[in-house]
Amino acid sequence: MSRVSPADVEQVTCIGAGVIGGGWVSYFLARGYRVVAWDPAPNAEERLRHLVNAAWPALTELGLAEGASIDNLTVAPTLAEACAGADFVQESAPEDLDLKRTLLADISAVTPEGVVISSSTSGYGMSEMATKADHADRLVVGHPFNPPYLIPLVEVVGGEDTSTDVVEWTSEFFTLAGKSVIKMSREVPGFVANRLQEALWREALHMVENGEATVEEIDLSITDGPGLRWALQGPMLTFHLAGGQGGMAHMLDHFGPSLLSPWTRLDAPELTPELRDAVVEGCEREADGRSIDDLVAERDRGVIAILRATGRA
Amino acid sequence: MSRVSPADVEQVTCIGAGVIGGGWVSYFLARGYRVVAWDPAPNAEERLRHLVNAAWPALTELGLAEGASIDNLTVAPTLAEACAGADFVQESAPEDLDLKRTLLADISAVTPEGVVISSSTSGYGMSEMATKADHADRLVVGHPFNPPYLIPLVEVVGGEDTSTDVVEWTSEFFTLAGKSVIKMSREVPGFVANRLQEALWREALHMVENGEATVEEIDLSITDGPGLRWALQGPMLTFHLAGGQGGMAHMLDHFGPSLLSPWTRLDAPELTPELRDAVVEGCEREADGRSIDDLVAERDRGVIAILRATGRA
Repeated sequence: MSRVSPADVEQVTCIGAGVIGGGWVSYFLARGYRVVAWDPAPNAEERLRHLVNAAWPALTELGLAEGASIDNLTVAPTLAEACAGADFVQESAPEDLDLKRTLLADISAVTPEGVVISSSTSGYGMSEMATKADHADRLVVGHPFNPPYLIPLVEVVGGEDTSTDVVEWTSEFFTLAGKSVIKMSREVPGFVANRLQEALWREALHMVENGEATVEEIDLSITDGPGLRWALQGPMLTFHLAGGQGGMAHMLDHFGPSLLSPWTRLDAPELTPELRDAVVEGCEREADGRSIDDLVAERDRGVIAILRATGRA
Repeated sequence: MSRVSPADVEQVTCIGAGVIGGGWVSYFLARGYRVVAWDPAPNAEERLRHLVNAAWPALTELGLAEGASIDNLTVAPTLAEACAGADFVQESAPEDLDLKRTLLADISAVTPEGVVISSSTSGYGMSEMATKADHADRLVVGHPFNPPYLIPLVEVVGGEDTSTDVVEWTSEFFTLAGKSVIKMSREVPGFVANRLQEALWREALHMVENGEATVEEIDLSITDGPGLRWALQGPMLTFHLAGGQGGMAHMLDHFGPSLLSPWTRLDAPELTPELRDAVVEGCEREADGRSIDDLVAERDRGVIAILRATGRA
C-alpha cells in the first residue's frame, strides 16, 4: 500500500482548480508541499495561476514553510498523470452529485492503492458520492472554507465505507498541515459550519425576497453586529456571556421563551431540561475554568483588536 | 416640548442595569454623557458598578470623549427621579412583554414631554410594547448587541404610533454617539441581525438536541470558519467572493440547487429570477466598483489581521 504517514506526505494532488481548488493549491504550496493540479477547463492553468498569485502575498505575509515556492506547482495534462505520484488527493470539483460520483471513481482508478482521496464538497455525504468508486474505504470528506489558504477550519467525515483509519489519517494530515479540524463521527448533510451558515443564509434570502431587509442591511447587520464576536467566540460562548454572571444557564432561562417567537422562519427545538443542561454543560467545558469576567475581558480585547485591524477603531 | 436636537443631548437615562443596560451606561459614559441609571433590583448599583468597571479599560483603550468619566454616573432611587432630567431614555429591562408594556408606560408618564424613549428589546415590535403608554409617538426600538459598549450596531425601528421624526431623531442621535445604525422602515420580529443570528442559533440547538454536534464543535466551526469572514464581509459579500470572478451571479447559478438540499432545517425560498437579480444587484451596489480581486485582497488583509489580533497567526 502506498499510503505514507501523514507527516511524510510530499506530493499533494488537487483536482479542480476553481476558487476552492485554487485556494487549496495555494495553501499546500505555502506549507511546502509539491502540488500537482488538474482541471478539465481549457483555461484552467491560467486561471489557477491567477488565483495562486493573488493568494501568495497573504501567504507570504503569514510565513511560508521551508522550501515553499510557487515553482513547486505543476499542472498535469491528464487526471492519471496528476494522480500517479500523489501522497494525498484533494478533490474540489463543482458541486454536482453525478459529476462528483464519476470523478471520485475516476480519481480512485488512477491513484496509487491506499492513498487518501478527500473531497471539498460543501454538503454531500461521502456515502452518496462514493457509489461508483472502487476502494471507497479511502474516500473521505475534507470540507474547507473559502479561502482555504486563510480560513483554518476543515471538517473531516467519512461515508459508510470509509475506514476509520482514513478518517484518523486525514484529520492528522490536515492538523499537521496547520488546519483546525473537526472530526465528525457521523454524516450530517452540510456538516457543522455549513448547516449553521446555511440557516443564516436562507433566512437572509427570505428577508430579501420579502422586502424585510436589503442586501446591504443584511451584511451590515452581521459585520457591525454578531460577526464581530464570532471570530472570537462562537454562538454558544457568545450567549454564555449574554447571560451575565449567570452564564448560559441564566441566558436560557431568560431568553428561552424567545425560542417560541417568530424571530426567524426556523422553529426551535423544545428547550427540554436535557437540552438546556447539555448546552450549559458544553459551555462550562468550553470555558474550561475561565470565569465570565475572564471571558468578557478576552472578548473585549479581541473585539478591540478586530475593530482596529479592520480600521474601525 | 423638551426634545433637544440629537447633538445637544447631555443626560442619558438608562432604565435597567443588567448586562445590556450596564453596557449602555458604560458606553454613554465613555462618549461623555451624564448618565442616570435606575433598576429595581436590590443590589442593582453594586452590580452596575461592577459592569462599568469591567468595561472601562476597554473603553479607555478605544479612547474616551472629552470630559468622559465614571463619575458622571448617578444611580437614581426612583424611576421618576431617573427620568426627570433626561434628554434621551434607553430602556433595557428583561425580555418580558407584559413587563415592557407596563414599564414603557411608567417611563413615559415621568419623562419630560417629547423626550425620546428607546427600548433595547431583542425582538418585540414597538407596536406590541407601546399598548399601555400615552405619547407612544416618542417610543422607538433601539436594539443593540452585546456588549453595547463595543459592538457598533444599533437597529432603529418604530411602531405603528411612532412618529417618523422620532425614528429619524433616534438614528441621528445614535450615529452622533458613534454607533452604526440600521434604520428600518417596517417592523420585522427580531429585526435584521437577530433574525439571522436566531436562525443559526436554532439550527445549533437542533444539532445539540440530535447529537449531530457538540457545543464545542459548533463554536469551533464558527470561530475558525465563517466567523473569521463575517467581521469583515457579511454573508452576502462572502458568497459574492465564493463565486470567483463571476461573483454572486455565478455563486447562485452554481450553488442555487443546494438551496433544495437538507443542509439545515430551514427551507429556502424559491430562487426566482427576481430574487437572484435582487441579490446580485445588491452585491454589486455594495461592492461599489470594487472588483472581485479588490474584495479578495481586502478580505485577505482583514482575515490576516484578525488571525494575528486573536493570536492565531
